[in-house]
Amino acid sequence: MIDLRSDTVTKPTESMRVAMVDAVVGDDVYEEDPTVNDLEEYTAELLGKEAALLVTSGTQGNQIAVLGHCNLGNEVIMEQESHLFHYEGAAISAFAGVQPRTVLGDRGFIAQAELEAAIRSEDVHAPETGLICLENTHNRHGGAIITPEQTKEMTDVAKRYGIPTHLDGARLFNASVALGVDIKELSEPFTSVQICLSKGLGAPIGSIIAGDKAFIKKARKWRKRLGGGMRQAGVIAAPGKIALTSMVERLKDDHTHAQFIAKAVEEIRGLSVGNQVDTNIVLLDTTQLSCTAQEFVNHLYTAGVKANTFGPQTVRLITHKDLSQVEIEKAIDTLRQVASYFEMEA
Amino acid sequence: MIDLRSDTVTKPTESMRVAMVDAVVGDDVYEEDPTVNDLEEYTAELLGKEAALLVTSGTQGNQIAVLGHCNLGNEVIMEQESHLFHYEGAAISAFAGVQPRTVLGDRGFIAQAELEAAIRSEDVHAPETGLICLENTHNRHGGAIITPEQTKEMTDVAKRYGIPTHLDGARLFNASVALGVDIKELSEPFTSVQICLSKGLGAPIGSIIAGDKAFIKKARKWRKRLGGGMRQAGVIAAPGKIALTSMVERLKDDHTHAQFIAKAVEEIRGLSVGNQVDTNIVLLDTTQLSCTAQEFVNHLYTAGVKANTFGPQTVRLITHKDLSQVEIEKAIDTLRQVASYFEMEA
Amino acid sequence: MIDLRSDTVTKPTESMRVAMVDAVVGDDVYEEDPTVNDLEEYTAELLGKEAALLVTSGTQGNQIAVLGHCNLGNEVIMEQESHLFHYEGAAISAFAGVQPRTVLGDRGFIAQAELEAAIRSEDVHAPETGLICLENTHNRHGGAIITPEQTKEMTDVAKRYGIPTHLDGARLFNASVALGVDIKELSEPFTSVQICLSKGLGAPIGSIIAGDKAFIKKARKWRKRLGGGMRQAGVIAAPGKIALTSMVERLKDDHTHAQFIAKAVEEIRGLSVGNQVDTNIVLLDTTQLSCTAQEFVNHLYTAGVKANTFGPQTVRLITHKDLSQVEIEKAIDTLRQVASYFEMEA
Amino acid sequence: MIDLRSDTVTKPTESMRVAMVDAVVGDDVYEEDPTVNDLEEYTAELLGKEAALLVTSGTQGNQIAVLGHCNLGNEVIMEQESHLFHYEGAAISAFAGVQPRTVLGDRGFIAQAELEAAIRSEDVHAPETGLICLENTHNRHGGAIITPEQTKEMTDVAKRYGIPTHLDGARLFNASVALGVDIKELSEPFTSVQICLSKGLGAPIGSIIAGDKAFIKKARKWRKRLGGGMRQAGVIAAPGKIALTSMVERLKDDHTHAQFIAKAVEEIRGLSVGNQVDTNIVLLDTTQLSCTAQEFVNHLYTAGVKANTFGPQTVRLITHKDLSQVEIEKAIDTLRQVASYFEMEA
Repeated sequence: MIDLRSDTVTKPTESMRVAMVDAVVGDDVYEEDPTVNDLEEYTAELLGKEAALLVTSGTQGNQIAVLGHCNLGNEVIMEQESHLFHYEGAAISAFAGVQPRTVLGDRGFIAQAELEAAIRSEDVHAPETGLICLENTHNRHGGAIITPEQTKEMTDVAKRYGIPTHLDGARLFNASVALGVDIKELSEPFTSVQICLSKGLGAPIGSIIAGDKAFIKKARKWRKRLGGGMRQAGVIAAPGKIALTSMVERLKDDHTHAQFIAKAVEEIRGLSVGNQVDTNIVLLDTTQLSCTAQEFVNHLYTAGVKANTFGPQTVRLITHKDLSQVEIEKAIDTLRQVASYFEMEA
Repeated sequence: MIDLRSDTVTKPTESMRVAMVDAVVGDDVYEEDPTVNDLEEYTAELLGKEAALLVTSGTQGNQIAVLGHCNLGNEVIMEQESHLFHYEGAAISAFAGVQPRTVLGDRGFIAQAELEAAIRSEDVHAPETGLICLENTHNRHGGAIITPEQTKEMTDVAKRYGIPTHLDGARLFNASVALGVDIKELSEPFTSVQICLSKGLGAPIGSIIAGDKAFIKKARKWRKRLGGGMRQAGVIAAPGKIALTSMVERLKDDHTHAQFIAKAVEEIRGLSVGNQVDTNIVLLDTTQLSCTAQEFVNHLYTAGVKANTFGPQTVRLITHKDLSQVEIEKAIDTLRQVASYFEMEA
Repeated sequence: MIDLRSDTVTKPTESMRVAMVDAVVGDDVYEEDPTVNDLEEYTAELLGKEAALLVTSGTQGNQIAVLGHCNLGNEVIMEQESHLFHYEGAAISAFAGVQPRTVLGDRGFIAQAELEAAIRSEDVHAPETGLICLENTHNRHGGAIITPEQTKEMTDVAKRYGIPTHLDGARLFNASVALGVDIKELSEPFTSVQICLSKGLGAPIGSIIAGDKAFIKKARKWRKRLGGGMRQAGVIAAPGKIALTSMVERLKDDHTHAQFIAKAVEEIRGLSVGNQVDTNIVLLDTTQLSCTAQEFVNHLYTAGVKANTFGPQTVRLITHKDLSQVEIEKAIDTLRQVASYFEMEA
Repeated sequence: MIDLRSDTVTKPTESMRVAMVDAVVGDDVYEEDPTVNDLEEYTAELLGKEAALLVTSGTQGNQIAVLGHCNLGNEVIMEQESHLFHYEGAAISAFAGVQPRTVLGDRGFIAQAELEAAIRSEDVHAPETGLICLENTHNRHGGAIITPEQTKEMTDVAKRYGIPTHLDGARLFNASVALGVDIKELSEPFTSVQICLSKGLGAPIGSIIAGDKAFIKKARKWRKRLGGGMRQAGVIAAPGKIALTSMVERLKDDHTHAQFIAKAVEEIRGLSVGNQVDTNIVLLDTTQLSCTAQEFVNHLYTAGVKANTFGPQTVRLITHKDLSQVEIEKAIDTLRQVASYFEMEA
């Protein structure tokens, strides 16, 4: 099977496996795992932050940010299509007791006027705006990039209002590589930032949240409450370090593959590309075919290609390190066949 | 001062005052206040429900509905401009631990396709849709009415998906009177409904939530947790009964006054009416003037008229029983003067 | 029926009823009800606090205190038998997201050593102690009084650790009257205090929470979220003011009646007094009879006396203003008869 | 350093390391990691349950149990010294919105009468009892064992009242090995059970929660919300399987070591054993010495032995696989020296 569902399906490399065997470990709840400590220091430096904390997933990193920055009854501003709103089970409301305020952005970017309009004034009826949360690259907008300039525009508004900011940077390295800018330019303006080791970078498990020391101290306690306190976590920190040090540059190949697919799709009758392909995500629009996205995905599956639906008439493809050029080409052939099948039916 | 800020400022009538003195009371936590029991039975019947419960405010009624219908981590679908989202301090997230999902409607109405698109599919990433909450008349859409036909379209979708529905009917009597339909036609299709005694109807304190017996039993317990369990509550139930039995028909006068204001405003240079005036709310658009809504409201205040801002360039006026025709006319004169002042400046 | 279930069953006096008619009112959500404002200022002064807020019940006052003082994931220290733990539906956990830590006290008093032992040290595993909550008089300990000296001992510990304190003073006037001390001596040492108007003092509805201005500002917002924001609340504030100004001294009569009952009960075979009768509560111990507390209460009811069970073999009697000496004597006769019935059976 | 702080400090064995390298992995969020699936099936069978779920820690397993079994505003009965109450940061209140009700047991066991007394009756004032949570072996009672008979007595009460039960079995294998009974006898009577792979069994990361299929489906979603959804989790499931298949029987050695220490301590002047040593935990009572537990622990540390305080005058020692007989003996010598030091001072 050719698996284009997500870059989360990537498997650890051989050197990551070896690193697990060799990792010097300790009890990380006591902050005594040297491999974890090293990874956290390395990542904090990389992202331009004072401190960092290894967590088990991007969702956990985001939840900790909301728990750490907000008070009960606050409102969190986020883009309408953000992961935090759609794919984290309403956990920010269930756990932190805060309300999301979604704002429709432009491919993940919220311009100053819209952002300011969403900030609450002091009023006995209104929740207090406790956090502004952004996402880069933006998953549901098809891997869209937020540039350093856009980042600055948004975080400047937040600073002016004294509101903390959090970046869901699950795929931030894709943005940094595609833009050719140091990741610091994209992370530093935020109060806290979360990045994933287990997506395009290929580590088996783990994300990291970074911020100032006081925030990371609070984050450590919220991680414990969420059950994310691990013991000999060096066994996952070791491959995580390899992900950061040797897997970033190759994300370019994933972007090239995505462009390659997008170009090919534009030639396929009945199918069109639904997004501007900035990074490793291609959205397929199936509205011209005689099928739903789900039926299209089912047929792809039968023909050996896995993909996810992303709306009633939208299919998402994500390129990643475990796909060769040959597989990408084969996947395109399959897209063509399936589209042709539903084209004939149409 | 002429107070057009809200119909919540209405004062109890003489007969309401007398009713407080004469009310036979008991301890309502023990369900032994006959005046409360009578009001609850009367209102349940009126709204076409099995049972009802007196609460201290519309907010409390709405919060109880969410607490009673939802589970932790659910999502509640509501119109983007609803009171529940804007004016209840994010309490549904703080207390019930649920996430609002706001959908932009057409004056409070959400068409079937938009409603269905907002309902979540079963997925490990997604919250479960636990409740659909509507508002009639719709405050932030300028007192807009949802008709029985619109009501049916929305509640039918909910029933098909097995999702409970709640109506924030804080001003439902305004809709019923303006449409000339029995209030039951607007309340019965919902799983639960909340109506306010203390807005246009003039009672000093109180709202009522109605539903089936099992729901009201749960609601009673949530009311206790919220601190809404009262003792000799008959003293507020008695004027509440008068509100329901003798203050409903006169809401027509408030609607006539609102129309009168709206017509007059259309003649005022620089000022325009920002909403279709269905009931007792008039929104003024100040964008053609050289001032913000706040400055406009400040000048009105100095000239003896109280109003609320409702956006950076929007002023809200609400008519109610404590305003005479003379006062309405005087208020219009004042609007004209203030608009003229900012018109000259423009 | 002679109702000894609770002092919450007391009905408003004639002058309270008249006060409702005469009350000058306004919209209290806008802080414009002069009668409410007057009551709040009066009570703040009375309790030695900067500011106060009218709420609908003692439970609401207590919940607001917890919401206002604590952060999510805190622990609240309270006496094991406190109202906050037993009778508020776990609302502090449901709403504020905090954990009660119950400590067995001596009739409501927790000595310094026990209190200090319950305060958490800073540790990644442990919740932070966010509040210490006491109760005076203490309901489940039979109306037990906490003295000014005991109050000081406990609040001094809290101050040393920098932990805020809240007093559930639902029946604090009973303590003040019984001790013959100014109520300030019992309220001032606490960060916040809640007193009830609707128990022994006879007002129909309402409690008041007092503290410093910053706290009351927060409290006002939490009250709104709980749905406790009322409109023309002057109609209940007016009788509340009478409760405070003319109903306090007569609590002595309730205490005398309770002593009278207790003395009589000691002469009744099979029945004994289960508490030291400090104020207006008498606990009856039915263990020497051939019945459960519930059966005893059922027989009392048939014979015209209402009482509450307070444990498998405990019955609670509360004296109050709506009981005459004759009724108290008749109630004692009934106790004697019912005890005799179960004595014979034994 | 000789580390007697906890069995959580144990490091993965060589075969566990190798297993990580060899593990066949997949994306566990899609339930496609064969190594995880195998571990979950194996553990479910072992514990006598339909299904199981890998989580990142014992705390996460316990939190999921509370979230999965309870509703907002419920009360959870647990032993007064339980891990869930003391060491999980009040997370059950912060996240699930439930209140702990602690009952003092006999070494973790709560007799029928005490358990029944803690179950709430239906009442508008009272939270509903939503779960009974037990712990075996019981950490704060010094590794105390709950027998199958005691287990049955408690779970029978719960079944009669229709209340679900959860077992915090972080060290359940210690109980099973010490008693010489199949672990099923200790786990089957509960609605759900959590066991840890990373304590005495030596796996680097992970715990497992087991129950019926419907519960595990809910648990999977709560795990996602908590951020415990992992990707190629087979890399930690593989050593976890080795923990279960080859590390259980050797727990006997830890128990023998604990007995050995306890016997030796009884000979040390000024020091005594504070618990009945059932398994691998020894509590030292330092009340006869001229020091606090913290000072004692500090001196131990300087002399090369790590231990944890467990109260103002209590020190906890835990034996585990990474301590040899020689190290145990050296630790005892150190205890003797430090005790002697503070004995002289006394």
